[in-house]
Amino acid sequence: MKTVSIVYFSGGGHTTKMAEAVVAGARSVVGINVNLLAISGDDITKGRYVNDALFAQLDASDAIILGSPTYMGDVAGQMKCFLDAGGSRWYSRGWVDKLAAGFTVSGGPSGDKLHTLQTFFIFAMQCGMVWVSHNEMPGDPNGKNRLSSYSGAMGQAGQEAPDVAPNAADKSAGVALGARVAAAVLRWNR
Amino acid sequence: MKTVSIVYFSGGGHTTKMAEAVVAGARSVVGINVNLLAISGDDITKGRYVNDALFAQLDASDAIILGSPTYMGDVAGQMKCFLDAGGSRWYSRGWVDKLAAGFTVSGGPSGDKLHTLQTFFIFAMQCGMVWVSHNEMPGDPNGKNRLSSYSGAMGQAGQEAPDVAPNAADKSAGVALGARVAAAVLRWNR
Amino acid sequence: MKTVSIVYFSGGGHTTKMAEAVVAGARSVVGINVNLLAISGDDITKGRYVNDALFAQLDASDAIILGSPTYMGDVAGQMKCFLDAGGSRWYSRGWVDKLAAGFTVSGGPSGDKLHTLQTFFIFAMQCGMVWVSHNEMPGDPNGKNRLSSYSGAMGQAGQEAPDVAPNAADKSAGVALGARVAAAVLRWNR
Amino acid sequence: MKTVSIVYFSGGGHTTKMAEAVVAGARSVVGINVNLLAISGDDITKGRYVNDALFAQLDASDAIILGSPTYMGDVAGQMKCFLDAGGSRWYSRGWVDKLAAGFTVSGGPSGDKLHTLQTFFIFAMQCGMVWVSHNEMPGDPNGKNRLSSYSGAMGQAGQEAPDVAPNAADKSAGVALGARVAAAVLRWNR
Repeated sequence: MKTVSIVYFSGGGHTTKMAEAVVAGARSVVGINVNLLAISGDDITKGRYVNDALFAQLDASDAIILGSPTYMGDVAGQMKCFLDAGGSRWYSRGWVDKLAAGFTVSGGPSGDKLHTLQTFFIFAMQCGMVWVSHNEMPGDPNGKNRLSSYSGAMGQAGQEAPDVAPNAADKSAGVALGARVAAAVLRWNR
Repeated sequence: MKTVSIVYFSGGGHTTKMAEAVVAGARSVVGINVNLLAISGDDITKGRYVNDALFAQLDASDAIILGSPTYMGDVAGQMKCFLDAGGSRWYSRGWVDKLAAGFTVSGGPSGDKLHTLQTFFIFAMQCGMVWVSHNEMPGDPNGKNRLSSYSGAMGQAGQEAPDVAPNAADKSAGVALGARVAAAVLRWNR
Repeated sequence: MKTVSIVYFSGGGHTTKMAEAVVAGARSVVGINVNLLAISGDDITKGRYVNDALFAQLDASDAIILGSPTYMGDVAGQMKCFLDAGGSRWYSRGWVDKLAAGFTVSGGPSGDKLHTLQTFFIFAMQCGMVWVSHNEMPGDPNGKNRLSSYSGAMGQAGQEAPDVAPNAADKSAGVALGARVAAAVLRWNR
Repeated sequence: MKTVSIVYFSGGGHTTKMAEAVVAGARSVVGINVNLLAISGDDITKGRYVNDALFAQLDASDAIILGSPTYMGDVAGQMKCFLDAGGSRWYSRGWVDKLAAGFTVSGGPSGDKLHTLQTFFIFAMQCGMVWVSHNEMPGDPNGKNRLSSYSGAMGQAGQEAPDVAPNAADKSAGVALGARVAAAVLRWNR
């Protein structure tokens, strides 16, 4: 068994829906154990994130998929506090050669979501990880890459209820990303 | 009179439509002279762009608005050849304190268009310019920021004819950007 | 009198030194009032930044210069919590047409500091601001652009004491940026 | 045998030196065939790159390492013309699941080189590839990550002769990247 962990922050519940879609995709692959790990503001004191148990689960993972809403053009503050805590793994090189991927949700079609995925990518690169693309062709408004993103999966959700947005197409993007990373983990660790 | 130049490359005619919208916006401001300058592949030899007359018009401009389709996640190669030729203005500091802005067109809603705008922004920063935002709120599918972009104006066009895409909303984004830069030029050079 | 506010977070004191250099530059321009505003972790509860007095000072400013260390390739978590709180000003459009600029400090020569400046830039664009470049030529190891950055000012500091790093050259970059933004504020609001 | 191809453009010969270092690193790994493929301006007509033989070699490769000088904050125009031609492989999905990595050279320590690596990364993501980090710790001025870059390898070279710059440390970064990608290819295709 190989382990894929999805670690994410959600402010209003929309990113949770995308995270659950990614989980469903990863779970669809035989031989994969999946962790769904939420970043909680309760673990942030004065801007510093501390949760040793969550980091222990990530240490034991073969792939880490990072998810956040895009707030003001970048990851949520809570997610950034978590990434800063990940500096300990940069220093220890504990996450070298783990696979990484990312997803994000915001209210607009474009909405600077690419920058959030780049923040995740740069973090993963600093940790010596290997980044897996969202390998789906765009062009189908009901398809797995409705918003035309390749660096990771994108979902769109504004003021709608999380049961409505991200929509089925965006969640199918999340499922596809989860399944792809899970398959890649098995290939990479054969 | 102050001068705003729109310099752009268009492969299939869609970016030309956005450029014309930006021109219309800039022309709507009293006291502004507008140049529409197309980058032509005919001026590129072995990857090097040469067109002294075009550069002379940019030298005489108070603002430069850069436009390109997003091809494979960045400006078109032809546009990059032009930007490389702009290295002479980096070295001479001839464009310091001119205003700058940008727009781009690609087939998908997101489609890595942000990276194209960042390429334009970084170029403008290297030249010592001042970058003007696309100051429109998103959320209206028929509005001036349909695709939710702030670093510049975005339009969407795939295989449709240029008369159809970018659509009226995206062109209204271009008009708004042109008018905003023109007004900013007057304020900056008061 | 026009007002330039420098709002920054510093973890170990190095970014404070850069902020003070930016302040010195802005103060060197006649007709400019300068605020130095530190983001404190004490104002962050569960990842949410609240400080109405600080925001009131920014509301009353003509330019906002943003500064942060680069942690794991992006702004510090504390700074991101502040930027998220700035979402209220995105919504109110209260900061439209203010000038903006940025600076960052990290341990390496390159070290993904550009991504931090891009985070600041994208935030400023979302707020409808106008971004001022760091207009200094590189090439001089003792000069005002030692690290060759144009989108904002960069400083380098690792484990050294803040009195030692960022060094005199990097602080001269901060001074130059502060003076440039101050002069731009006067020109923009003439 | 697995194949790693290094495809690069060099204007003044400095990036060629980095490319040769990457080749040396890849060749040091048993079981790896290495191609060194230069982008030539001779293959660019009116901004369009055509070289079917070069693309055939890339089609037959298990990993593609992209290299370019950073000109005006992004890949050289010639490299972008090549990337645009790669749009055919985006459409055909012919490069899905190949490994990818990148390197760049410019005159300054920072110099917006990150943006060039991001251009390569986004291109690779669009093609469905998997991106390998430059897994070296910074901090040693004579070490394999002198300039503190993780998304790819960076070298510094200005007006010096290519025999002098990039220096030995920067070339050791290239060697490390080449060896890392070669080892990753063997692991990924076990």
